[in-house]
Amino acid sequence: VRHNASLLLSGIVIDRDSEVPLAVQLYDELRQAIVSGQLRRGARIPSTRALAADLEISRNTVAAAYDYLLGEGYIQSRSGAGSVVSSALPEDHLSSDPGDALSDGTNDNHLALRGVVLAEGADHVSPYEPPRPFVVGTPDVSEFPFDVWSRLLLKHWRSPLMRMVCSVDAAGYLKLREAITHYVGAARGLRCTPERVFVVSGSRQGLDMAVRLLVDRNDEVLMEDPGYPGARSAFEGAGARLYPLDIDEEGARVPDGRVKAKMAFLTPSHQYPLGMTMSLERRKKWLAWAESNSAWIIEDDFDSEFRYAGRPEPAMQGLDQSGRVIYLGTFSKTLLPSLRLGFVVLPECLVQPFRRARAVIDGFPPILEQAVLAEFIHDGHFGRHVRRMRMLYDERRLTLETEFAREMQGIIALDPCDTGIHVVGWLADGITEQDTIKAAAASGFHLRGLQPCRIRPAQRQGLLLGFAAAQPEELRRSVRILAPAMRRLESN
Amino acid sequence: VRHNASLLLSGIVIDRDSEVPLAVQLYDELRQAIVSGQLRRGARIPSTRALAADLEISRNTVAAAYDYLLGEGYIQSRSGAGSVVSSALPEDHLSSDPGDALSDGTNDNHLALRGVVLAEGADHVSPYEPPRPFVVGTPDVSEFPFDVWSRLLLKHWRSPLMRMVCSVDAAGYLKLREAITHYVGAARGLRCTPERVFVVSGSRQGLDMAVRLLVDRNDEVLMEDPGYPGARSAFEGAGARLYPLDIDEEGARVPDGRVKAKMAFLTPSHQYPLGMTMSLERRKKWLAWAESNSAWIIEDDFDSEFRYAGRPEPAMQGLDQSGRVIYLGTFSKTLLPSLRLGFVVLPECLVQPFRRARAVIDGFPPILEQAVLAEFIHDGHFGRHVRRMRMLYDERRLTLETEFAREMQGIIALDPCDTGIHVVGWLADGITEQDTIKAAAASGFHLRGLQPCRIRPAQRQGLLLGFAAAQPEELRRSVRILAPAMRRLESN
Repeated sequence: VRHNASLLLSGIVIDRDSEVPLAVQLYDELRQAIVSGQLRRGARIPSTRALAADLEISRNTVAAAYDYLLGEGYIQSRSGAGSVVSSALPEDHLSSDPGDALSDGTNDNHLALRGVVLAEGADHVSPYEPPRPFVVGTPDVSEFPFDVWSRLLLKHWRSPLMRMVCSVDAAGYLKLREAITHYVGAARGLRCTPERVFVVSGSRQGLDMAVRLLVDRNDEVLMEDPGYPGARSAFEGAGARLYPLDIDEEGARVPDGRVKAKMAFLTPSHQYPLGMTMSLERRKKWLAWAESNSAWIIEDDFDSEFRYAGRPEPAMQGLDQSGRVIYLGTFSKTLLPSLRLGFVVLPECLVQPFRRARAVIDGFPPILEQAVLAEFIHDGHFGRHVRRMRMLYDERRLTLETEFAREMQGIIALDPCDTGIHVVGWLADGITEQDTIKAAAASGFHLRGLQPCRIRPAQRQGLLLGFAAAQPEELRRSVRILAPAMRRLESN
Repeated sequence: VRHNASLLLSGIVIDRDSEVPLAVQLYDELRQAIVSGQLRRGARIPSTRALAADLEISRNTVAAAYDYLLGEGYIQSRSGAGSVVSSALPEDHLSSDPGDALSDGTNDNHLALRGVVLAEGADHVSPYEPPRPFVVGTPDVSEFPFDVWSRLLLKHWRSPLMRMVCSVDAAGYLKLREAITHYVGAARGLRCTPERVFVVSGSRQGLDMAVRLLVDRNDEVLMEDPGYPGARSAFEGAGARLYPLDIDEEGARVPDGRVKAKMAFLTPSHQYPLGMTMSLERRKKWLAWAESNSAWIIEDDFDSEFRYAGRPEPAMQGLDQSGRVIYLGTFSKTLLPSLRLGFVVLPECLVQPFRRARAVIDGFPPILEQAVLAEFIHDGHFGRHVRRMRMLYDERRLTLETEFAREMQGIIALDPCDTGIHVVGWLADGITEQDTIKAAAASGFHLRGLQPCRIRPAQRQGLLLGFAAAQPEELRRSVRILAPAMRRLESN
């Protein structure tokens, strides 16, 4: 009996706006169709080409879904005759013959389903950008104290040599973990011991590891909307479902009791991208939520060292009584992105799982620059550098505000900014992010809109404007070059 | 209606010898029991404590399986009353309500299922060991040309500064990829371009990335038996099924046509741990297998730079006409493990997926030591260092052979060794690896047995004996200290 493939196609619903990757949606739909009997045993399923064309998605996506169905035994491939629904479904037998699952692996060049999901997740990653006016997330690397660093490099490279090259710890160099413990305790109010500090290759690796260890495919993760696209990549790359959180002036809102999730990704010290600091009351609500749901909170504290007004709010981690907060810190903003040094402060119960996972993932972090950074922090260079950069960035922030107030009035309105290295600028009605970015590019500037940070579509148009990566004079000049192009948008 | 939990327990079969992680086995068994109706809807499932005790596995394992079943909607948790089989199974509805899957996430402190699998995989990882006589896989770091390296460190740190700290590429520093391309082409016979070289934090990261992109849970992976435990960790950590390959004097045997797999992990230049070089004919057979099965071959070329007799066999990758080989290289054996520098040479079609995945995983590799290594290779220091170490290691290899022939006759018989930095020693009948390791530890030496490399249990007892990490005099002395302890084993 041959069933027509169009029978199947009519039932498949693919939601392009969903945060669930297309290949996963297709796999789910096909599996449901098979399990429900809508697609009967022995029925021929369409070729990857036909289904891709029909659904207007890529062939690789279809192939990945088919591969997974093949691997699980829902479909079988007949050489030359395409694939058919298996005559015996995995659901049929209590303990399936291990031989079954591997008998039909006609994969040609395809990624694994999770490989497709992982690579698709990368859609949201913003590329690192070299220092330029308005660039977001890039510090001024030219102000880095290269002399001090060189001296420490040489010192640690020559002596105590053997200890250094042989001191291997999956969690990172102990002296660095001690220095970090001291720093985050004093400067960020964390409750922490060196045993709970885990050195990673940028906070991104910390997030990826937390997601690999704590989130399964289809698990729900709460995320600020708008939020950090890099985190969205990590979650979508893991096949998680995103639940978008509303944001008000106190920060991300705690969802009502019906919403359960494995994890919430939050930026309490400095909401990314909008910039508010979460209120103490809201922090307590989140911690209560995490405790009552046995859920994890990822606290991404990415640039709160640069605070220009008022006292810095201590990190949420310091308030956590029940060990639900995973704290991410980074030296990419305070020092150099190219060092690839960040850290995670873990709840006690996750220390061993992280150590074990690291052994499989990449062994341990490289040692030389960890040793240098440990001494750099210990000797007070780090604190001095951050204080110095805070003053420099403050001047740049004020320059940007002054210039925008003068040159961009009625076109772009900057939010107040008291923390970090970028500010949000809201576009006047009728001006779109897209047009703004295009016009700026024609003047030689790369601007970044808010849309990539949004999980749900929103009308309000805005820009992220970095002010750290250029001197005040260059910022001033750049605003004056940009302004006429922006004014033309207004008159259109 | 309450069904007795023992009804369920009687049906569950857990295979401790299986390469499938326990949590995954348990998840599969429970899901099958539910789908088949053996466990009816509404039936109470046993507490994690009870099931763990009954099956004699850890509670965490049971909890991980339950969490996954909860997440997929097969079971529901009732606060205070444990968990029950869902009244509506995922199989019931064609397109399940996204609200369903997240309504019941009563996870308490548990890792995700895949987190458990990942952390369990780490069981096979051998810890890095500091240089000592007989230690396996550790080079002699004291012979490293620290002066040359310091000079290059300083040079690259001072100038061309900005280019270096701003040159960000997910695949690694271009000049290093060019240097690697040149080196592997000349020394290892690879066909390669800088675009296809991907710098990683040790070859372990390259393997982990390949597995994340190319292997789904339950996919079949072929692996040499005995083989490299680190690779086993990567595969089991991904939930893959291992198919063990027999090994003969020509290397790993190609399985018969019925065996299909996504991937084969091979060490053609120097079989780990047994040490043979794969014959040309066998390499061709493997390449034909990969092509006809559209499967991937991971070629791990971990220490073949140290070849003491005959011409080095070029890498298998150079023979590959159909782009099925993923080549792993490392500087951990030739230079220093603490550098965390390795590389992957990718087939064309995997370059973009690797770049995209890297953006999510850890962004890009740290730059300073990449720049130093690029020049270290380019200026010929690398070639000189490898040649020098090959001579030193050759002397140590001969020392070990001579001393063992004299001191260990009748107890441990060394295999011939023409490549690498360890040799296999076979124990005489009646002497076990376990007893040998215990006796050696009492004399202050850490020996490593073959068992951790074995996928299938085997009678023959042997040791891996590293000879690189100690000077000849120290090796000689160590063998003489060890010998009496070994002799006592014989007489028992």
